[in-house]
Amino acid sequence: MCRLCRRFLRDLSSLSGIPSARRPARLNASRAVSYDSQYLGRYSQSGEEAGMGMVESAPGAFELIARDDVTRARRGTVHTAHGAVPTPVFCPVGTQATVKGLAPRDLLTLEAPMILSNTYHLYLRPGADLIGELGGLHRFMAWPGPILTDSGGFQVFSLEGLRKVDDEGVTFRSHIDGSEHRFTPEKVIEIQQILGSDIAMAFDECAKPHDRAYIAEAMRRTHLWAERCLAAHSRPDQALYGIVQGGVFEDLRAESARVLSEMDFPGYAIGGLSVGESKEDMLRILDHVVPLLPDGKARYLMGVGSPEDLVEGVARGIDIFDCVLPSRLGRNGAVFTPEGRINLRNAQFRDDPRPIQEDCACYTCQHFSRAYLRHLIISRELLAPHLNTLHNVHFLLNLMSRIREAIEGDRFADLRECFWAEYRPADEVARQRNHANYRRSTGPPEGAKNERKGRTHSERV
Amino acid sequence: MCRLCRRFLRDLSSLSGIPSARRPARLNASRAVSYDSQYLGRYSQSGEEAGMGMVESAPGAFELIARDDVTRARRGTVHTAHGAVPTPVFCPVGTQATVKGLAPRDLLTLEAPMILSNTYHLYLRPGADLIGELGGLHRFMAWPGPILTDSGGFQVFSLEGLRKVDDEGVTFRSHIDGSEHRFTPEKVIEIQQILGSDIAMAFDECAKPHDRAYIAEAMRRTHLWAERCLAAHSRPDQALYGIVQGGVFEDLRAESARVLSEMDFPGYAIGGLSVGESKEDMLRILDHVVPLLPDGKARYLMGVGSPEDLVEGVARGIDIFDCVLPSRLGRNGAVFTPEGRINLRNAQFRDDPRPIQEDCACYTCQHFSRAYLRHLIISRELLAPHLNTLHNVHFLLNLMSRIREAIEGDRFADLRECFWAEYRPADEVARQRNHANYRRSTGPPEGAKNERKGRTHSERV
Repeated sequence: MCRLCRRFLRDLSSLSGIPSARRPARLNASRAVSYDSQYLGRYSQSGEEAGMGMVESAPGAFELIARDDVTRARRGTVHTAHGAVPTPVFCPVGTQATVKGLAPRDLLTLEAPMILSNTYHLYLRPGADLIGELGGLHRFMAWPGPILTDSGGFQVFSLEGLRKVDDEGVTFRSHIDGSEHRFTPEKVIEIQQILGSDIAMAFDECAKPHDRAYIAEAMRRTHLWAERCLAAHSRPDQALYGIVQGGVFEDLRAESARVLSEMDFPGYAIGGLSVGESKEDMLRILDHVVPLLPDGKARYLMGVGSPEDLVEGVARGIDIFDCVLPSRLGRNGAVFTPEGRINLRNAQFRDDPRPIQEDCACYTCQHFSRAYLRHLIISRELLAPHLNTLHNVHFLLNLMSRIREAIEGDRFADLRECFWAEYRPADEVARQRNHANYRRSTGPPEGAKNERKGRTHSERV
Repeated sequence: MCRLCRRFLRDLSSLSGIPSARRPARLNASRAVSYDSQYLGRYSQSGEEAGMGMVESAPGAFELIARDDVTRARRGTVHTAHGAVPTPVFCPVGTQATVKGLAPRDLLTLEAPMILSNTYHLYLRPGADLIGELGGLHRFMAWPGPILTDSGGFQVFSLEGLRKVDDEGVTFRSHIDGSEHRFTPEKVIEIQQILGSDIAMAFDECAKPHDRAYIAEAMRRTHLWAERCLAAHSRPDQALYGIVQGGVFEDLRAESARVLSEMDFPGYAIGGLSVGESKEDMLRILDHVVPLLPDGKARYLMGVGSPEDLVEGVARGIDIFDCVLPSRLGRNGAVFTPEGRINLRNAQFRDDPRPIQEDCACYTCQHFSRAYLRHLIISRELLAPHLNTLHNVHFLLNLMSRIREAIEGDRFADLRECFWAEYRPADEVARQRNHANYRRSTGPPEGAKNERKGRTHSERV
């Protein structure tokens, strides 16, 4: 056993209050990395510490803490082998076993509850077997908290012209070197079991959202594959979630929700949204499909993560989100503020002494002016994507934290109204649509609650 | 006064043990940034805390703590308005107001005693006036510790074909947009005073080291300009160091050291080395020129920073070093180990579970395997240059820290021998030369001390 492993095991064993049954077997792998024990403590917390009665829950299980009485928003906990995840939650994306621009200790400081990584990318490079040999994905990337891996369905079906699908699986060519590979449901489960993520996803066919005939066929295959994924899955410390497909068609979505619900996954993702359809279609499908999913299971809206979509997704009953947006925007110089996105590359920020956001607690806003950040961007300095991404991820995690508090305090509808009064989405057309959708809302009608604050939306715009 | 400034002033005033006279005036600038007070504490420490009797020293003044009795190595303190700098010291380089790949908090965690930034680059982009308006360079880049700025001499004279020099100054074209600019000694001092660095450098002409006629002419101009820099310099919380030139010619170096010593700068740099001459020439010139400089002043070897050059520079009496090497190598996947450099891009590290260096305390080595770092490099991930640079800077700072302890404990000759027994420079020819030079050594002959350990150098190679 190497020096790092000995230290890691010592750190782990010194933690109190963690039932040994909650310690995942792979944390004892001989190459386990050393983490600061205060971090391990947080990520290994029991259900009790996470605000729940002490329950030895199955991996991926959802426990309800509170419901909003105006919308479908709900506050809960998703249990994993690497700790309890408070929901609703936003997961930063570490496609290639790293959240671009951030070190694991940055994510720990930001208190990211869970991150996402990609089966497709890790399978191609560096290879799942290598990660397995090196102790699994947590150890490989030195991330002690929960990890969700997508199944590669979205990536493989994005490879226009490079793939051939049949009922057995998909043959595709690597975007890196053109080499040919084949994914089957069994293969995708095998990879995710080797990676050792806390939540694995079933293999699905993610088709373009408007071609009904193709969507129906892809949905049928997704259901076949979901059963085969369930049959192939055997890792006891890992949850397997199913993925609902059906494009923008409400009847297909209903059928997909019904078929998958019968398979009794511990959680359900809604796939095939945020892939080119309008925001109106996305929210309409969410309004329609969420009520058809089992209430006691986690609901995960894949690939969604703009501030406005997080607020509206939560209002429609979504528990888990992930998106590359905060890091992708950060690399391009764009950062979130409560009023909307700004691009720091813009000349207007040349001599702006203010932080990105006056009341933000992140390291970037506590130390650096917009003028300095613009200088870094213009000078193509490595520090620019780091500081911008740090702020953007903090912004979304902080938004989700405020959303969770608001649901617990029965103030989510207020938060949602205040958000829309201030926030201007990047696309003004999208903003108007969102506003209209927000007015229509879901669940019990808003009313007394919003009047309570004595102001209307238009007053604050 | 903005929120950030209020917080900063509160943090500053809450520190105990800092005589108000040591608080630099510009820290009260209205746009001063907020820092964690524990960091401010370290960087505002008094001379007493830095191991010296309590002395209100002039900026840039050198105080001697200990001498090695075998070589010319010496342990001291350089006093600045932003804290005491323990010497010998290595300064990471933040050319464009950022050490590439590291945030200021990373440098604080690494306990970097001082950093260097570049007059030429900051003058061109974002402009000295802008940095001045935003509260000076420390505030702009959120670095609370000491900063040394070079004068731009090296950069301007590197612009082959883009410059025209006369006795009054240099006209040159920007490497960014080709625009024409002119540096005079007065201009270069004005820029550095606006930037507000703790140690400014006189404007010098850095000529190619082997053309004797040109070197003599450039040296004459450098001496003229040094007097004009002294006359132009007025900022009381900033030190101005002179730069000795003279190429690889011992008589010219001696003349330069004599002329500049008479001008009574608080510190002296040795410029025009590590610019293409052989290592043998560099060490020969150091052997010759250092004894000709005033013993009570700091000595700074510009642009030098490989591990072997640090050890040999210290042995020849150098107090201050700077180099882009740790960050430049880090961006290319090369990292330091006690045995020499390795390049993590190499296929041999594909499945290597070990950290870069087994006994290294840096964040990178405490958490990540060579296999993971190689994956990041191959995948062109932003985390790669960050983690590699973090290790490399830590490696050099740790080497300097061990060197300081060794000098204090009268063990520097041992450390130097152990270093050479283990470390293999990237260039084997250079290694042989260094070894020969090490055998010749400087100062009092080595002898009893090395025999004391009961082994010779060759036994350990």
